[in-house]
Amino acid sequence: MAAQPLLIAGSWRPASELLATFRAEDPATGNPIGAEFPVNGAADVEAAIAAAVAVADELARTPPERIAAFLDAYADGIERDAEALVALAHAETALPAETRLAKVELPRTSNQLRQAARAVRDFSWTQPVIDTAAGLRTHRAPLHKPVLVFGPNNFPFAFNAIAGSDFASAIAARNPVIAKAHPSHPATSERLAQLAHAALREAGLPAAAVQMLHQFDPALGLKLAGDPRLGAIGFTGSRAGGLALKAAADAAGVPAYLELSSVNPVFLLPGALAERGDALAQEFFNSCTMGSGQFCTNPGVVVVPRNADGDAFVAAATAHFSTAAAGVLFSRGVLEHLQRNVDILREAGAELLTGGNAAGPGHRYQPALLQADAARFLRAPQVLQTEAFGPVGLLLRADDVAQMAAVAAALEGNLTGTLYSATDGSDAAAWAQVSAALRPRVGRLIGNRMPTGVAVSPAMNHGGPYPSTGHPGFTAVGMPAAIQRFTALHCYDHVADPQLPPELRDRNPGGVARQIDGRWCVDDVDARTPAA
Amino acid sequence: MAAQPLLIAGSWRPASELLATFRAEDPATGNPIGAEFPVNGAADVEAAIAAAVAVADELARTPPERIAAFLDAYADGIERDAEALVALAHAETALPAETRLAKVELPRTSNQLRQAARAVRDFSWTQPVIDTAAGLRTHRAPLHKPVLVFGPNNFPFAFNAIAGSDFASAIAARNPVIAKAHPSHPATSERLAQLAHAALREAGLPAAAVQMLHQFDPALGLKLAGDPRLGAIGFTGSRAGGLALKAAADAAGVPAYLELSSVNPVFLLPGALAERGDALAQEFFNSCTMGSGQFCTNPGVVVVPRNADGDAFVAAATAHFSTAAAGVLFSRGVLEHLQRNVDILREAGAELLTGGNAAGPGHRYQPALLQADAARFLRAPQVLQTEAFGPVGLLLRADDVAQMAAVAAALEGNLTGTLYSATDGSDAAAWAQVSAALRPRVGRLIGNRMPTGVAVSPAMNHGGPYPSTGHPGFTAVGMPAAIQRFTALHCYDHVADPQLPPELRDRNPGGVARQIDGRWCVDDVDARTPAA
Repeated sequence: MAAQPLLIAGSWRPASELLATFRAEDPATGNPIGAEFPVNGAADVEAAIAAAVAVADELARTPPERIAAFLDAYADGIERDAEALVALAHAETALPAETRLAKVELPRTSNQLRQAARAVRDFSWTQPVIDTAAGLRTHRAPLHKPVLVFGPNNFPFAFNAIAGSDFASAIAARNPVIAKAHPSHPATSERLAQLAHAALREAGLPAAAVQMLHQFDPALGLKLAGDPRLGAIGFTGSRAGGLALKAAADAAGVPAYLELSSVNPVFLLPGALAERGDALAQEFFNSCTMGSGQFCTNPGVVVVPRNADGDAFVAAATAHFSTAAAGVLFSRGVLEHLQRNVDILREAGAELLTGGNAAGPGHRYQPALLQADAARFLRAPQVLQTEAFGPVGLLLRADDVAQMAAVAAALEGNLTGTLYSATDGSDAAAWAQVSAALRPRVGRLIGNRMPTGVAVSPAMNHGGPYPSTGHPGFTAVGMPAAIQRFTALHCYDHVADPQLPPELRDRNPGGVARQIDGRWCVDDVDARTPAA
Repeated sequence: MAAQPLLIAGSWRPASELLATFRAEDPATGNPIGAEFPVNGAADVEAAIAAAVAVADELARTPPERIAAFLDAYADGIERDAEALVALAHAETALPAETRLAKVELPRTSNQLRQAARAVRDFSWTQPVIDTAAGLRTHRAPLHKPVLVFGPNNFPFAFNAIAGSDFASAIAARNPVIAKAHPSHPATSERLAQLAHAALREAGLPAAAVQMLHQFDPALGLKLAGDPRLGAIGFTGSRAGGLALKAAADAAGVPAYLELSSVNPVFLLPGALAERGDALAQEFFNSCTMGSGQFCTNPGVVVVPRNADGDAFVAAATAHFSTAAAGVLFSRGVLEHLQRNVDILREAGAELLTGGNAAGPGHRYQPALLQADAARFLRAPQVLQTEAFGPVGLLLRADDVAQMAAVAAALEGNLTGTLYSATDGSDAAAWAQVSAALRPRVGRLIGNRMPTGVAVSPAMNHGGPYPSTGHPGFTAVGMPAAIQRFTALHCYDHVADPQLPPELRDRNPGGVARQIDGRWCVDDVDARTPAA
C-alpha cells in the first residue's frame, strides 16, 4: 500500500503505520476518484500532539503581526489557487463550482482568514480590562496548548479543518492546530494544507503550528479527544459523533466546542402567509434545497397555520419540490442517513407529500416534503424533530397561534429560529407570543428571511443551546467572538509595566480598545480621553 | 424527627421526606450547636427544580431595574442584619468575628451584590454587538433555566450559595437560583435565605426565583447536577466533589463552572530574597495562616533558592510557624483531610520542619511547614502538589533559576502564581524565565504580594486552567465578567426595532456601552459619536 503523506511536525511524511487507505468519491457518479489517502495509527497521532505541544509556547510568544501575516498570506494563496481548489472541491463534493464554490464559499473563506488577521492586529479578541485602583489587568490570551479541529463534510473550504472558522480562530489566538480533515474531500484538504504550509514558511511561524491528519479509527479519535495535552477541540458534524468526542474531552477537562444538529424551525405567522404565501413557498424551497439541503442551518421544520392560506402555501411548496431535480448528496453515508431519518419521521406519523426517492447515478435524492399535525408533533416532539440532513422539509400544521407557540416551546436547542410576519404589523401579537417561546431555544432569531445565510460578522451567533452546540455562550462564526473560544483568561496583579503583554501596558500606541476603570476607550492608561 | 424548613417555591416548608437531620458544630469545641437541619429526599429536589423552571421565563422577562432593586435590597438587608449574621457565622465557622467576618467578608458580600446591581443597571454584562450593514445584533441574555449553586465551607457570606458571587451573578443575569447550602454553616445560610426572601418580595420578583436546600445524599446531588432542565451549575469546593458533579452535568449538556483546588505557587527570586527575605517570611506566614489557611488562594507551595538567603528565609519562616497558635479548622472533615494530605506529602519525601499536630479542643491544627528539594518535586510533581487545605506550606528548594522555572513548568493548572522580585531590577532575567513557564499554568499572575487577597473587580480573574477550575475562560469573581458565565449568546437577524431587547435597539437612552460596527460607544445606532 502507498498513500498520500501527512503533514506532521512541519513536513510531509508518509503515515508511519498505514492501517488502510481510502479515496474520495465523485458523488455524482459514486466512482472513486483521486489518490489514495492514509488511515494512520496511534504513532502519527502521538507525533502530531508532541510536535504541537513542543511549539505551543513559542507560538503564544510570536509577535501578533507574524500571525496576521500568516493569515493574510494564506488567504492570498487560496485566492491565487482558486481555480484548482474549486475544481478539486467540485469533484469531491459535487457542489456547484461557479455559483457556490468559486463565487461564495472560497471568497468567504479567504475573507474569514483576513477578518481573523484584522482581529489579531487590532487585539479585539483579547478584550483588555484594566482596573487602575486595584492594580489588576486582565485579557484573553493563548491557551498555550494545541487545538484539535474536526472539519465537516459540507463546507470543503469555509469550515475545512485546515482553512475554516475554527482553524482561523484557533491560530488567531496563537494556538497550534491539529486539523482532522474530513474524508469526503481529502484532496481539497491536502491542497489547502499545502497552501497553509507555504504561508507558514512565508510568515516565519513554527513549522508545527499547523498539522493535518486524514483519517484514523473512531477509538483513536476518542483517545485523541481525551488527551489532556490539548487546549480545546473544535468540531462541526453529527450529533452522535460530536457528543462522543465531547464526553472524551470533558473527562480530560478539555473544552470542546461543538456545532451539532439543528432543524432551524421557521414559523409562518398568519398575516405573512396571507400577504405573500406564494413568495414564501418559493423562498422556503430555495433555502431547503440549496446545496442539496446540506447546511447546518437548513430550514428543516416549517410551522404553517391550518387555514386556506396555509393550504395554499403547502400546495405551492409541494409543487416546487415535485418539479425539483434530484440533488446530489456528499456520500452514500449521507444518503443512507437521510433515508433512515426520513423513515423515522414517517414512522412517527409524518406524511410524505412528495419526493424522497434515491436516484442514480451517484448519491442523488429527490427533495422531500413531509407534513404532520402540530398536535401530533406535540405528542412526540423528540422524534419529530429528528434532523434529516439533506433537502427535506417537514411542515407542521398548527390550529392557531397558541399551538404554534406550543410547538416552539417543545423544541430542543437549535442554531436558528425564524418568524415571518406581515409587513402591515398585523402579526405583532402573534410574533410576541411565538417568539417568547422560540427565543430561549435558538441562538439566532431571524426575521423574515431563511436561515441558510450565515454572515461572517462580529454580531453573528452561529451557536445555540444544547444539543445544537455543546455550550450556549459561544459562536463558531464571526470575528473576534469565535476566536475567544480558544483563549484563556489571564490576569496580571501588580505586575510591572514592562512585564505586561503589549495590550495591557499603560501606553497604547496601537489604539487597542480597552475597558479602563469601567469605560471602553483607546487611550493610554494615564491619559484617558473618549474613544475616537 | 423535626427540622428547620426548606425554601421551596416561594415558601418555607418542612422537607416532604426527612431522611435525616444534622446540626452545625462549633469548630472551637467540636460540640453540636443550633437547630436540626433537614437531609431531604428526591421529592423536594424535584419540587425545587419544577418551581424554578416554572418561573425562568418570567424572570428572564423581568425589567432589569427590579432585579437590581432586589440585589440592592438584599445588600441592605445583610448590612442591617450584620450583627446577627456575624454572630451566627462566627459560631459555625470559628472565623474571627471582627477582623474577618464583620470588617471584611460581610461588607465584601453586600458590595458584591451592589456591584451586580450596577452591572444590571448599566447592561455591561450583556456586551451588545451591532453590525448595521449585516442587520445583526447580538448580546448576552438570560439562560431561561435555573442555575444550581453549591457553596463552599470557607466563606459563609462571600461565596455562600445564597449570597455569594455565583448567586449574585446568576440572579443578575435573570436566572432562578437553587442554592445548595454548605452543611457546615446551615444557620448562617438560613438567615441569609430569609433576607433574600424578604428582598424578593420587596422587589416583586417571582417567589421561586430563589430557593434553598440544605443537604441531600451524594447520589441525589449527582442526579440533580445531571438534570437537563438546569441552565448551569456554580460550584466552589473540593476537586473530587466538583469533578463528580461536572461529569454528571457534562453528560446532560449543562455547563458547570467549578472552582476547585489550587496550591498557588510562590516563587521567591534571588534578588528579592537578598533584599527583604525576613519581610517575605513574615508576609508568607501571615498569608498562609490567615483564616487557618482555609482559602482557595492560600500560598501552599513556595519555591526558594538553595543559598544563604534561602536558608535564612526558611529559618525565619520556621520560627514564625513554630510560635504560631494552633488554628481552628471548619470541621473534623477538614482536619482529617488536611492530615491525610500532609501525610501524602511526607510520604512523597517532604520533610516536616515544624507543626502539623492536631490539638484540642475542637478542630485545632498547628500550622505546618514542610520542605523538599525541587529535584524531588520534579521527579514526583503530581503527588508533591497535593493541596493541603489549611495552614500548611511546602517550601521547595531550587538549585538555581532554571530549576525554579522547571518547577513552574511541572505545575498543574492553578488559580494564582506569584513572583517576588528585587526592587532594583536585578531579577528581571529571572522573572522572564520563571514567568514564561508559570504564566500559562495560572489564572492570575501576581507580582510581589501574596495571593490571598481577591478583589471584586471587573479586571479580576478568579479562575485558571483545569483542574483549578473546569474551564480556563471564566472568572468566578468580578462583575460583570462573573455574570457572563450564566448567559446565552442571543443574536437577532433582521428583527424589527420594537421587537429587540432594550439594549439592542437603535435608541440608547441609558448610554449602554455597545460595539457598533466594530467600535465601542454609548450612542444611538444612527447617531454615533465618540464614547463619553
